[in-house]
Amino acid sequence: MKLENPHPIEWKFSQRAQQLQGSVIREILKVTMRPEVISFAGGLPSPETFPVERMKAAFDAVLSRTGKVALQYGPTDGYAPLREFLANSLSTPSSTISPEQIMMVSGSQQALDLVGKVLIDEGSKILVETPSYLGALQAFSVYQPQFESVAMDDHGLVPASVAAQGAGARLLYALPNFQNPTGRTLSVERRFELVETCSRMGIPLIEDNPYGDLCYSGEPLPKLLNMNPDGVIYMGSFSKILTPGIRLGYIVAPKPLVRKLEQAKQAADLHTATLTQMVVYEVIKDGFLGEHIPTIRHFYAAQCQVMLNAMSTYFPDSVKWTTPLGGMFIWVTLPDHIDSKELLEAAIAQNIAFVPGAPFYANNPAKNTLRLSFVTVSPERISRGIEILGQLIKARL
Amino acid sequence: MKLENPHPIEWKFSQRAQQLQGSVIREILKVTMRPEVISFAGGLPSPETFPVERMKAAFDAVLSRTGKVALQYGPTDGYAPLREFLANSLSTPSSTISPEQIMMVSGSQQALDLVGKVLIDEGSKILVETPSYLGALQAFSVYQPQFESVAMDDHGLVPASVAAQGAGARLLYALPNFQNPTGRTLSVERRFELVETCSRMGIPLIEDNPYGDLCYSGEPLPKLLNMNPDGVIYMGSFSKILTPGIRLGYIVAPKPLVRKLEQAKQAADLHTATLTQMVVYEVIKDGFLGEHIPTIRHFYAAQCQVMLNAMSTYFPDSVKWTTPLGGMFIWVTLPDHIDSKELLEAAIAQNIAFVPGAPFYANNPAKNTLRLSFVTVSPERISRGIEILGQLIKARL
Repeated sequence: MKLENPHPIEWKFSQRAQQLQGSVIREILKVTMRPEVISFAGGLPSPETFPVERMKAAFDAVLSRTGKVALQYGPTDGYAPLREFLANSLSTPSSTISPEQIMMVSGSQQALDLVGKVLIDEGSKILVETPSYLGALQAFSVYQPQFESVAMDDHGLVPASVAAQGAGARLLYALPNFQNPTGRTLSVERRFELVETCSRMGIPLIEDNPYGDLCYSGEPLPKLLNMNPDGVIYMGSFSKILTPGIRLGYIVAPKPLVRKLEQAKQAADLHTATLTQMVVYEVIKDGFLGEHIPTIRHFYAAQCQVMLNAMSTYFPDSVKWTTPLGGMFIWVTLPDHIDSKELLEAAIAQNIAFVPGAPFYANNPAKNTLRLSFVTVSPERISRGIEILGQLIKARL
Repeated sequence: MKLENPHPIEWKFSQRAQQLQGSVIREILKVTMRPEVISFAGGLPSPETFPVERMKAAFDAVLSRTGKVALQYGPTDGYAPLREFLANSLSTPSSTISPEQIMMVSGSQQALDLVGKVLIDEGSKILVETPSYLGALQAFSVYQPQFESVAMDDHGLVPASVAAQGAGARLLYALPNFQNPTGRTLSVERRFELVETCSRMGIPLIEDNPYGDLCYSGEPLPKLLNMNPDGVIYMGSFSKILTPGIRLGYIVAPKPLVRKLEQAKQAADLHTATLTQMVVYEVIKDGFLGEHIPTIRHFYAAQCQVMLNAMSTYFPDSVKWTTPLGGMFIWVTLPDHIDSKELLEAAIAQNIAFVPGAPFYANNPAKNTLRLSFVTVSPERISRGIEILGQLIKARL
């Protein structure tokens, strides 16, 4: 039984769906899957850091012990012991975070989508960094806001720019630690000023912190969350400190907001996989991250240094770049007249890839910028790739 | 460093978030967690049917063989071998489904959210059954449509009602097999008529099919999808035939729509857990479902019969109910003057729970209806619970 000559449907997409575009990065990644390509384009953590054996043992333990619970539907806000563990980890002597403020999500991209869904109306003014994380711009743009870009410099977001531009904003989205794409860090001095400014202006401040634990030296910087738990929405992730392919993150928000986010999550996908949450709790509950995270820090710090050294050697003086204190990215600013998209085409012809900077701007893209990731490429290939990139840039001076 | 006397934020939710409400069912479930309660309220599959050992072995095998791939980010449309497997399973001699038409999602609730996001504008007319699945009403209501309820009878959705009411509708949402909440099945005769009507009127037809494999006798009924693959959006799930706690489902859609859904999925949560998809493929690739599903069918059929028998014995003649051919639910219609919400209060006082019917209606709720699930309660407790419920109903005649 099949319909003969069905009338072809003319698909009519919603206005919000017409805003949607595929990610530029994902398109580039498809091109750069060939093994001969030296790709600085990825945003993927290094699989060398994945604790595969630990995860395997944890799946085995959880399924053996409580398989029928782990495989059943679960609560929308998440697995209670994991939320308690996170609440304890996030609390400081002066600011207590309660488990009721925490909701587990299927990766922190989902946190961005849910916050956008709950806080953004069509035309709402929202503040983002210049440049900002592409995935956040994508997630928010579905809800058709008016993006307002606030200034950044080498010390991160400029609080005075928020004060000047922020009146009436529905939220400010910030990535204070080792930002994607720039690798920049918001200075400690500015953190308090930023929190104070947002509180005074009544602007909910989103602190997206997927990389915060990956500092190359010292301890993670103080969180905006702890400076004002009633005004900051915090997003955390296990993607960069454990593994991304399990899709697990969390959102910490003041209680009136977290209950509304929970309703949005319930409508969006009921809840995040019970088994995944129980397994991650099993892996981390006895302090595993305390020994594991330092190994990632050392690994990424060394990789970053290799790239910085190669850039000093092979890039001309007119090229500028950031010196990250942690994380996975370096941001490069070329002389004004070089378009990084054109450079990418030439680079791909030589089997080198990176991500042009333009898509990271909500307004007025700087076409002479690009993002480099160093975490999944061997030191030899980092040096070789940067050398070739340097030649391509010099040829354009 | 903590802000002294922060200005309290007045949370301003988006218009769509103001539509959001918590699920009535989840609220009832909280009340009925006490072990002494005989709960017919749940929509959960029986954990007795979960193949825990198989799942454990599959996690072990996948993590041992390809742990670093399974734990890494993956493609938005999903794990290719699983999509190929599903495409083969869904194809018939007269209608070929290609893997490019399939996108994996984090449970079919996410399919509902993504379809709503991509097809519904504020005020869009959308058609739903009377009554309809509560989770779908929740997911769609976020996007502020105008719901139009189309008629159902014991043979399921009435196609003539679609023809009469459907002009200009952006979609029709149907659950043709063992519907949640009524347990009704769309007759084979009406299937073709419905598909033809929707095609002629240019209405995208959503076939939500979480229970279709759980037929108590014979083979699953023909899918609307195969009658018109260019006009039907099909939603499948592993929740009722494998386990729900892993959150895995899929959506089959015509290519122009599936590419747009993929962009929406990318913005919503990047992709569904790689590991989960690889594990499910490992479990089902050699035909496991062919032996496993019949055990669930027999189990649920026997449970259903126990409840039907008890209802015949203990319910007064003025009460009517459906006789499901599969699935997990029986729908009860009380005499007009009995309000099932009031009955629920009395029932809970006697440690019996069910779900009142009103929340399943998009328009004009029938307050004298209720939904019973029989899959997670022992036969003895089913009989006892129905007996007590019968007494409570009789007391109200």
